Amino acid sequence: MSVRPVIALLTDFGTSDHYVGTMKGVILDLAPEAATVDITHAVPPQDIRSAAFCLAAAWRYFPPHSIFVVVVDPGVGTSRPAIAMRVGERVFIGPDNGVFDLVIATATPSEAVALDNPQFARASVSETFEGRDRFAPAAAWVARGTPLAAFGAPVPVAVRLDWPPPRRLEDRLVGEVMYVDRFGNLVTNLERAFAEPIPDGAEVRVAGAGPLRLVRTYGDAPPGAMVALFGSTDRLEIAAVGGSAAAGLQAGRGAEVTVVWRA
Amino acid sequence: MSVRPVIALLTDFGTSDHYVGTMKGVILDLAPEAATVDITHAVPPQDIRSAAFCLAAAWRYFPPHSIFVVVVDPGVGTSRPAIAMRVGERVFIGPDNGVFDLVIATATPSEAVALDNPQFARASVSETFEGRDRFAPAAAWVARGTPLAAFGAPVPVAVRLDWPPPRRLEDRLVGEVMYVDRFGNLVTNLERAFAEPIPDGAEVRVAGAGPLRLVRTYGDAPPGAMVALFGSTDRLEIAAVGGSAAAGLQAGRGAEVTVVWRA
Amino acid sequence: MSVRPVIALLTDFGTSDHYVGTMKGVILDLAPEAATVDITHAVPPQDIRSAAFCLAAAWRYFPPHSIFVVVVDPGVGTSRPAIAMRVGERVFIGPDNGVFDLVIATATPSEAVALDNPQFARASVSETFEGRDRFAPAAAWVARGTPLAAFGAPVPVAVRLDWPPPRRLEDRLVGEVMYVDRFGNLVTNLERAFAEPIPDGAEVRVAGAGPLRLVRTYGDAPPGAMVALFGSTDRLEIAAVGGSAAAGLQAGRGAEVTVVWRA
Repeated sequence: MSVRPVIALLTDFGTSDHYVGTMKGVILDLAPEAATVDITHAVPPQDIRSAAFCLAAAWRYFPPHSIFVVVVDPGVGTSRPAIAMRVGERVFIGPDNGVFDLVIATATPSEAVALDNPQFARASVSETFEGRDRFAPAAAWVARGTPLAAFGAPVPVAVRLDWPPPRRLEDRLVGEVMYVDRFGNLVTNLERAFAEPIPDGAEVRVAGAGPLRLVRTYGDAPPGAMVALFGSTDRLEIAAVGGSAAAGLQAGRGAEVTVVWRA
Repeated sequence: MSVRPVIALLTDFGTSDHYVGTMKGVILDLAPEAATVDITHAVPPQDIRSAAFCLAAAWRYFPPHSIFVVVVDPGVGTSRPAIAMRVGERVFIGPDNGVFDLVIATATPSEAVALDNPQFARASVSETFEGRDRFAPAAAWVARGTPLAAFGAPVPVAVRLDWPPPRRLEDRLVGEVMYVDRFGNLVTNLERAFAEPIPDGAEVRVAGAGPLRLVRTYGDAPPGAMVALFGSTDRLEIAAVGGSAAAGLQAGRGAEVTVVWRA
Repeated sequence: MSVRPVIALLTDFGTSDHYVGTMKGVILDLAPEAATVDITHAVPPQDIRSAAFCLAAAWRYFPPHSIFVVVVDPGVGTSRPAIAMRVGERVFIGPDNGVFDLVIATATPSEAVALDNPQFARASVSETFEGRDRFAPAAAWVARGTPLAAFGAPVPVAVRLDWPPPRRLEDRLVGEVMYVDRFGNLVTNLERAFAEPIPDGAEVRVAGAGPLRLVRTYGDAPPGAMVALFGSTDRLEIAAVGGSAAAGLQAGRGAEVTVVWRA
């Protein structure tokens, strides 16, 4: 392979144990030239939605030939399918449990297969750590140029998640918080393309608080102010300038967010 | 060197300061082609046993030529030996304080030397950060092909830890928890090779709780159930399906675990 | 470029979201051969002084051609300058808000430019994540050999921070804590070159506690003892042997530290 492979990892393994390092050891044993990149390993244990969100936010920024390994896997050791899926030149590897939902929502996989061929897994696959024994080796084999068809039979479609859809009413948008980041920013399901245009003077309310101003950037409001703005994933976010909106509003995933205007 | 060097790091430095990054800077300055991999840096400060456990769990999964740098070092700045040890093609570098104990328990080093030659350390070695000034450079020099004998005189044997041995009685196995992972799984010193065969119907007790079922994988029990199973390091683990056994049982390292059957 | 590029990242993004991974994706897309290294991402949100300290502690240990990307940026999205600055062969990239202060304090930049040329940023620059859209691409372009002059107009000088200077009186040194590390060590602004020689028998006081002994290394005092010593950044540190001085003394940044002797 002439291009240096990139293998991006996204798990709920944390970084306090050896798990992630061991996966990288397995990868480098098979694909010595690969660059491994951590998207994050701090997904709350078994929180498929957070994994789906982080993957959605990151994947388009990686090189076209990147391989993504997502291991947030409450069903590890059961018969839930383990898959590899191609979108453009990129390949996504992990359990088919919804972690790829937000990729599929905006891009159509050209190919998806079950990771059934034992030739591309470790000789002994742990019932509790398929990341090490099945997913990491699969990523390395893809990096080495193994075609997806070699891994197993085509599988028709991936598991989808049921996200509450944002709604547009006559005088308002109604959405909800889908992710809270390290800064305490509340990221909503109100995407810019869905939400705009928003009439001048619209106000934002969240968790009984507000009205909040809709601003372009943090610098448009004084420190401590609670504001709404379109963030780096092009979703409406609630932020406290220089602070944590999640702490200030005591709000988290699922909190309703409305954008209200006079019709 | 024709194979890309792999240097795996395992410390108690955490990742909130610059320490680990600085060690990688030192490594890349001397060995630009090296891949550095974090096993973990979240070993509890100065907890040699946790370091030994994490290393034991990870090292065999890394490429054969890997170099492991382990810096959990309560004796930093004292005259405790700093060593490099070869096991097969792999090299282990760190203080000789027990961190390599579980490697030595299952593999025989072919060579061990003191890191005495100042030529392979930084010109000035900090009394408090030998990771930067002695261990990282040593790893890089090994990656460059420096033979261990160049670092210093052979040293006869490494410090060993005193782990409580598991016991097999007529109607039970008696072990204890040796590690608690990020998910709250309680990993015991009951290795599969020691423990098996376990008679059908055996029950597991830990910290006054139980009996727990011995299962093959998490999926064999409902969410919330407390179970016992052989985990990814082939040791008996106590787990709460979808939860934390450590929190549920209020148990940690040293808690007694028994596997009981009717003789 | 014949030498493998090294791009070191220092942010307050944490590692629980996708932010850092996404920046690395952007970098590897443009500079596939680069080695990315995390200095730390756990700088307290928007804490410019901690970022400046961590950068100062790390940068000289990296290869001469390294590129440093520092994104601790309360002014993200505002008109505060984004710059690239050359010191020797090394290049520093980030907002001009003081994060480079301790580099400039001991080294003179040969060149500094504004990151104005949109050709070297992503087509659309987020108001809240310039790390992804401006700073990461800039680092990758520098790694590819783009001269700094191509990024924008020269800028005269960087923002400086106002650190309280240490003082030498007739019978004492007076300084303060400037950083607290993961072990609870209190790192002061009393640099060795400023502080030495210290008369024999000098005592150290911090936060109303003391006198503390000035030792050469942790091993010079029994476990639990509170001591003072020159640490790995050649600054006087207060440490609890095998414990946390910050917790033991309930002291943090800004606490006064004095070294007292009889004249």
